[in-house]
Amino acid sequence: MQFTINKDRLVASVGDVMKAVSSRTTIPILTGIKIVVTSEGVTFTGSDSDISIESFIPTEEDGNENIHVEAEGSIVLQAKFFSEIVKKLPQEKVHITVGERFSTKIKSGTAEFNLNGLDPEEYPQLPQINEEKLFRLPTDLLKHMIRQTVFAVSTSETRPILTGVSWKLENNTLTSVATDSHRLALRSAPIDTEQGDLTFSNVVIPGKSLNELNKILDETDELIDIVVTENQVLFKAKHLLFFSRLLEGNYPDTSKLIPEDKKTNIVVSTRELLQAIERASLLAREGRNNVVKFSTISGNDIEISSDSPEIGKVFEQVTCTSIEGEDLKISFSAKYMMDALKAVDSTEISVNFTGAMRPFVLRPEGHNSILQLILPVRTY
Amino acid sequence: MQFTINKDRLVASVGDVMKAVSSRTTIPILTGIKIVVTSEGVTFTGSDSDISIESFIPTEEDGNENIHVEAEGSIVLQAKFFSEIVKKLPQEKVHITVGERFSTKIKSGTAEFNLNGLDPEEYPQLPQINEEKLFRLPTDLLKHMIRQTVFAVSTSETRPILTGVSWKLENNTLTSVATDSHRLALRSAPIDTEQGDLTFSNVVIPGKSLNELNKILDETDELIDIVVTENQVLFKAKHLLFFSRLLEGNYPDTSKLIPEDKKTNIVVSTRELLQAIERASLLAREGRNNVVKFSTISGNDIEISSDSPEIGKVFEQVTCTSIEGEDLKISFSAKYMMDALKAVDSTEISVNFTGAMRPFVLRPEGHNSILQLILPVRTY
Repeated sequence: MQFTINKDRLVASVGDVMKAVSSRTTIPILTGIKIVVTSEGVTFTGSDSDISIESFIPTEEDGNENIHVEAEGSIVLQAKFFSEIVKKLPQEKVHITVGERFSTKIKSGTAEFNLNGLDPEEYPQLPQINEEKLFRLPTDLLKHMIRQTVFAVSTSETRPILTGVSWKLENNTLTSVATDSHRLALRSAPIDTEQGDLTFSNVVIPGKSLNELNKILDETDELIDIVVTENQVLFKAKHLLFFSRLLEGNYPDTSKLIPEDKKTNIVVSTRELLQAIERASLLAREGRNNVVKFSTISGNDIEISSDSPEIGKVFEQVTCTSIEGEDLKISFSAKYMMDALKAVDSTEISVNFTGAMRPFVLRPEGHNSILQLILPVRTY
Repeated sequence: MQFTINKDRLVASVGDVMKAVSSRTTIPILTGIKIVVTSEGVTFTGSDSDISIESFIPTEEDGNENIHVEAEGSIVLQAKFFSEIVKKLPQEKVHITVGERFSTKIKSGTAEFNLNGLDPEEYPQLPQINEEKLFRLPTDLLKHMIRQTVFAVSTSETRPILTGVSWKLENNTLTSVATDSHRLALRSAPIDTEQGDLTFSNVVIPGKSLNELNKILDETDELIDIVVTENQVLFKAKHLLFFSRLLEGNYPDTSKLIPEDKKTNIVVSTRELLQAIERASLLAREGRNNVVKFSTISGNDIEISSDSPEIGKVFEQVTCTSIEGEDLKISFSAKYMMDALKAVDSTEISVNFTGAMRPFVLRPEGHNSILQLILPVRTY
């Protein structure tokens, strides 16, 4: 194996596949990055066996030569060292040559590294994916769907299925739901399918996988292909493949949790409510579990307050656009409320309460594709 | 105590004095910030008993009103909460009022915090400083002196005196020295003194104090006053006082460590040598103590190399501006060399070796006010 490559492209691809590499793996070869060179280009692979990422650099692109291949072949190099070395190389051109016993020479300018490589035959095969269930959506929409739901997954392993985000495709609408059983985040979006009648449900993607995927994808409106199989999901962007295993088990039916009736409804500036909660949280997080109090007071005003006997107390009035229905006093986790308000991309939000002890729902004012549900805390 | 203050000024002053506050103090009142209001302005104080910082905001400045004082007085507020609260306040105007039993109201817009304050009479007095030994230097020069020496202090408490930087003033030249007994950093500068014949020596300032001072001071050429007493040093900038205790004990005489003779002398680009060392360090830090090898090879070339049997090896040639004297092979800590090269603000440096087992000296090419000395490691 022998080739010359542009340093910036090398650094970018190695950086992407590094996101799948874990230093705490039990499979030693997975601490490495696999490099495969053909006349078409160079493929880099990183994996922790849950997530696998493949990045491809074509030899030629738009008439420019990215790579000059002198000999095809493959190698596995220690990810930790290889990724740091490529970033520090002195020149734009990098020559990589594999010699005897996997010894690999990386040369740039007058700097020369000799790394002990590993046998590429030992590197596990990536999952074979049957592309039957394929659909696509714009990359930026996928990123929004991830950001607006993934924070609500459970961080506890007591119910492993809740550490994932559940995807369902029905009537050309993709619905993404996450819950840790104290709060729930839902985002839906219309999508294009190759086959008009594609449906699936109970596709549960680990929260960690979606977080890593979100870091790699650029904020662009280019379409990304998504393939769902029984135990894997594959995201196919330009020159990038991202595989994640799916969680096994049945995701709970969350549709019944969402209250239909209305007792108190407010419409308020998302930013003003968020900032008031952030201030109340400064004291609340010292006390009982970061709980703040919310109450309707008079006219269109609500009061956000919290107290911590040791430190002091805080209260603040926020004027709403409208308040309808019964007076209300309710308490909830400041953290859950801040997470939800940050996820709702909307200047104004509508909050629908159905009593002090029942879950309440936040929706962006004007559309229904985002829903955030929070369970209150008993304090009044 | 009652006053109205501009939020930005409040945030800046509280941020400055916070740098002296430690949450791990054994004196409970020192977890607070002291606020004293007079008709002249407001003074904030933070201290961990080693370092004390005082920030003053005048009621009026350049014809603008910073503060409107309604009642003089003083209070101590929990630093951790007070500093976070002021940053999050919604409006530009902040009203602070102390009521009964030190209860303090902080109001901005419709947000109101009530904090349990502490008795200001319990707050320790700042050291009384006799301003006999006073000199001044530009703030940016002081910052450079700190940055170019403080990294070399010892982090171990086995010889506490070495955790400080030693200052000496003689013949209107201030000399600052730090050493951890494996390397030494020295910076000298001419200074203005009120009294032409001011001299002192063995003024040892804790490294931690200088690091905090460096963070607070702006990069400006305004003069800063420095007052040295037997056990304290006081830095007086505009509206800011920074007190630090001095370390007790005798700082070792380091002048004899610096070799006078020359066996091998190189002049080289600081950046090229630094980058080559950084690359060699990528593998060296896995092996024996981050040691890299240096050898003169032929003509004006040197080779930097390192190897780590598990991972691989690296070597690189650097072309020097000049090499004079004997051939040399020497090994040293990559970290010490990188620290020294970063501290020498010069495009080219001169490195003077007096043999493979003797300390070597780096100086900026062209002047003598900075000196970095490193002890080699035996490997050849």
